[in-house]
Amino acid sequence: MSHDLAVARAATLRPIAAVAEAAGIPVEALEPYGKHIAKLDAGYLAGLKDRPDGKLVLVTAINPTPAGEGKTTTTVGLGDGLNRIGKRTVIALREPSLGPVFGTKGGATGGGRAQVLPMEAINLHFTGDFHAITSAHNLLAALVDNHVYWGNALGIDTRRIVWRRVLDMNDRALRAIVNGLGGGGNGFAREDGFDITVASEVMACFCLADDLADLEARLARIVVAYTREKKPVTAGQLNAAGAMTALLKDAIKPNLVQTIEGSPALIHGGPFANIAHGCNSVIATRTALKLGDYVVTEAGFGADLGAEKFFDIKCRKAGLKPDAAVIVATVRALKMNGGVAKADLARENLEALRAGIVNLGRHVENVRAFGVPVVVAINHFTTDTEAEHRLIADICRDEFGVEAVQCRHWAEGAAGAEELARKVVALCEGGTAHFQPIYADGLSLQGKILSIATRIYRADDIAVAPKAAADLKAFEAAGYGHLPVCMAKTQYSFSADPALLGAPTGHTVPVREVRLAAGAGFVVAICGEIMTMPGLPKLPAAEAIHVSEEGLIEGLF
Amino acid sequence: MSHDLAVARAATLRPIAAVAEAAGIPVEALEPYGKHIAKLDAGYLAGLKDRPDGKLVLVTAINPTPAGEGKTTTTVGLGDGLNRIGKRTVIALREPSLGPVFGTKGGATGGGRAQVLPMEAINLHFTGDFHAITSAHNLLAALVDNHVYWGNALGIDTRRIVWRRVLDMNDRALRAIVNGLGGGGNGFAREDGFDITVASEVMACFCLADDLADLEARLARIVVAYTREKKPVTAGQLNAAGAMTALLKDAIKPNLVQTIEGSPALIHGGPFANIAHGCNSVIATRTALKLGDYVVTEAGFGADLGAEKFFDIKCRKAGLKPDAAVIVATVRALKMNGGVAKADLARENLEALRAGIVNLGRHVENVRAFGVPVVVAINHFTTDTEAEHRLIADICRDEFGVEAVQCRHWAEGAAGAEELARKVVALCEGGTAHFQPIYADGLSLQGKILSIATRIYRADDIAVAPKAAADLKAFEAAGYGHLPVCMAKTQYSFSADPALLGAPTGHTVPVREVRLAAGAGFVVAICGEIMTMPGLPKLPAAEAIHVSEEGLIEGLF
Repeated sequence: MSHDLAVARAATLRPIAAVAEAAGIPVEALEPYGKHIAKLDAGYLAGLKDRPDGKLVLVTAINPTPAGEGKTTTTVGLGDGLNRIGKRTVIALREPSLGPVFGTKGGATGGGRAQVLPMEAINLHFTGDFHAITSAHNLLAALVDNHVYWGNALGIDTRRIVWRRVLDMNDRALRAIVNGLGGGGNGFAREDGFDITVASEVMACFCLADDLADLEARLARIVVAYTREKKPVTAGQLNAAGAMTALLKDAIKPNLVQTIEGSPALIHGGPFANIAHGCNSVIATRTALKLGDYVVTEAGFGADLGAEKFFDIKCRKAGLKPDAAVIVATVRALKMNGGVAKADLARENLEALRAGIVNLGRHVENVRAFGVPVVVAINHFTTDTEAEHRLIADICRDEFGVEAVQCRHWAEGAAGAEELARKVVALCEGGTAHFQPIYADGLSLQGKILSIATRIYRADDIAVAPKAAADLKAFEAAGYGHLPVCMAKTQYSFSADPALLGAPTGHTVPVREVRLAAGAGFVVAICGEIMTMPGLPKLPAAEAIHVSEEGLIEGLF
Repeated sequence: MSHDLAVARAATLRPIAAVAEAAGIPVEALEPYGKHIAKLDAGYLAGLKDRPDGKLVLVTAINPTPAGEGKTTTTVGLGDGLNRIGKRTVIALREPSLGPVFGTKGGATGGGRAQVLPMEAINLHFTGDFHAITSAHNLLAALVDNHVYWGNALGIDTRRIVWRRVLDMNDRALRAIVNGLGGGGNGFAREDGFDITVASEVMACFCLADDLADLEARLARIVVAYTREKKPVTAGQLNAAGAMTALLKDAIKPNLVQTIEGSPALIHGGPFANIAHGCNSVIATRTALKLGDYVVTEAGFGADLGAEKFFDIKCRKAGLKPDAAVIVATVRALKMNGGVAKADLARENLEALRAGIVNLGRHVENVRAFGVPVVVAINHFTTDTEAEHRLIADICRDEFGVEAVQCRHWAEGAAGAEELARKVVALCEGGTAHFQPIYADGLSLQGKILSIATRIYRADDIAVAPKAAADLKAFEAAGYGHLPVCMAKTQYSFSADPALLGAPTGHTVPVREVRLAAGAGFVVAICGEIMTMPGLPKLPAAEAIHVSEEGLIEGLF
């Protein structure tokens, strides 16, 4: 059994009502899902509106590497650490996607003594939110083809249907299909395909919605197809938004669980961090801010993608004002950024560390450019050396002007994140945050892309494909120019080339294609190849997953 | 607002713990899903094993017509009626499928004062069981294509992959597709398609399994493809059964809800009644038998399909011994069987009634052929006349030798089904049941089909397509000859022609195709066109479904 699973199994979970009570949530506000998970009642949520907000802390990271950074683990550990030092703290996380669980071994609920529980339930169906999103998405798809089948009164051009279907499964065979085969009774044959559910625009709408009414309005705005005259056709014109909203009526309520140390965590929503914005729902974050004096939340991938979108899309649109950010790094990942192969990471290598730490330095600068004060968390691994940690601390202090704190929450739980928690409190209480997005709403769409590329990715320029440039103009002409842009770029590099680690400069960001997400409220700029339906590996984790005679799920970690 | 919805809204639901307590279920055995739904804990279920069984009553019906018979309504009403006269009764029902909810207006939770609640939740996602089945099914599909992609060690012939994909959605565009398009990275292009989730063999396995271990064994036996040498490839060979079982670990626990009158109801599983056996899970029925002195359950479609499969597949395999059966009919549906058009049903027509009642008479004979005593329930409609009811009662008594009881549970709840309840108790206590399947395990597969066709459908013969006949021989040679057969035939007629109402004779049943369901444990015989993925109508119910400002789902009824 893995260490993470052993720790999870050894933990004693409190009844969810006790977790809620400790967070000041009355038991009547709970809609339980089993004994250790509950949704929060809509009426209760509405009643929180006039309470003051707590402090908002974002956990982000350097560019991800195969070495692992531990962003979720640090988010959980920091939340536990804040509670340990007497700050009433609520954690807000994304829900894991079911598909990847069966691909590459590993869940998405933290690790060691910094986990959210019950991990099996959270990693599998949880409260069914993603299934509800899948259903709502595919209902709209069925209504599109059904409309065409029954006479196509709206004049949809079947070559220009842009609403694909989704499954929460890693299934490469469904990436590109032809549907409607088999004769006239099955409709009109056309090209189609499936994305994984986290890539659904319904997921993005769900995560940015203020409430159920706003969700319905967003869903109605989704563009599903174009006519031969290239006029958009929306979900609203198909009368689909009401039924989609009905399918999401329970899903929209945030899910309450606990960490191993008993901290309350709201886990809700989980949009892709490439073609979507990659953070948990606005509803969960706002609820957490009403319940906690501190809220610790995370964003997907590294800070170039995750934090940028958290700030420029989620915070801008939801009116959130982050008070501090934590940038997570590991000795191992910094050495990889410095050119060390994965097999050699266990050996001390101060030179490589010095070469790779430029990646961290740039992320620190970037986050500060949004007016958010930063602390660095170095997530401790057993192979790290004292000299390596000392070097990071020195460079951070002397060259980046930021404090780097060693964290041992994986091994020690809340105690291991206590120092980080104290630094975060000092940052928040220092009142130095003056959050602002990196670009203004009024800038042109291409100007917004250029702004992110040059100021965050440090590119010299962008190269927008002619069709993409024309589409951006068309979006502006159609009244979408005020939307923020959502960059879909490799997570492994500041550039669009996944092999360029460290802090590359002099590159150009190619904008291959742009897509309008009118419901979510952003324009997606696709820079390079972006996979929206993963495949399974040669030896899928699924082959080792089973239920033991004692009724326990084995093989999830 | 519809009458059904108004009644449902006016009902005061008891907390699910109170419903459980009344059924003798301790609160510790509950895994709540919201306030009014709970799953029953696996440990508690295991502990019931040595209790004696209650009486088992099947509710079935004449062949369905557009007039409506009210089988679910009568099942609920009878359960309430039995509780009203002091018999501790548990109702066991199928879970509704999500797809059809958005097609033709109407849920599947009964009507009037004979409903199971909360109807919105039951009709939409409920406890996620069907989503779990969808995920398990599609995981297996992804693993099949992934196996081929990574070298195809088992030698799967991609032209002979028989495992399609599923969605719980009415979506005709997905009936026939080509997948794996778009280049080498997406796999090998091949023909594929989607069925609705209720048609999944995973659903049939789920509903026939004794427990989680038996479910895993069944899943492992599923044949997903054949090699070029026509050797079967199973889910077990793909190491898929363990992960599929993990996905179904919670779903397998039966769901407890309540009727408007407060009777406990277990709603669990819902296989198609054409290519599968059409009744709720064996686990739910067995649990109900341990909890109630009486259990009222239903089977899909009319008695020619539903009751026959309930007896020959479910009862045979699970060792259940039904004590009585109720055959539901309405004045309107009998008149339709006698040739009256739907628009003319409100007018008294004794002649048509006399012509159409032969359908009922034959179902009565058929059910008795299984050794199960019968009572007829005439589900009262407001347009019925006294003379019509008298005629039915007379013919039933004088010509069919069976009692016909007028029921008013739709309007009056338990009180309206009290007389039916007393008749059912008398039948059960009479001890005249001596259940036996209509054919023996040892009969050849073709002999079993012939037996059902001649004894139940009253056909002169069957016409088995040459390929189907060869396949049946091959199934026998491969050791599957002992399995029961599952007939996939139109539900509208005893014959394979949906237009032949009443009690046709002299017909021949065509067996177009046969399929092995090795996991479920039956051989499907397809007689005529069987649709396994419905489409949406021109004006889908989805267009009228929405959430009101008060947070209530409108348009589901």
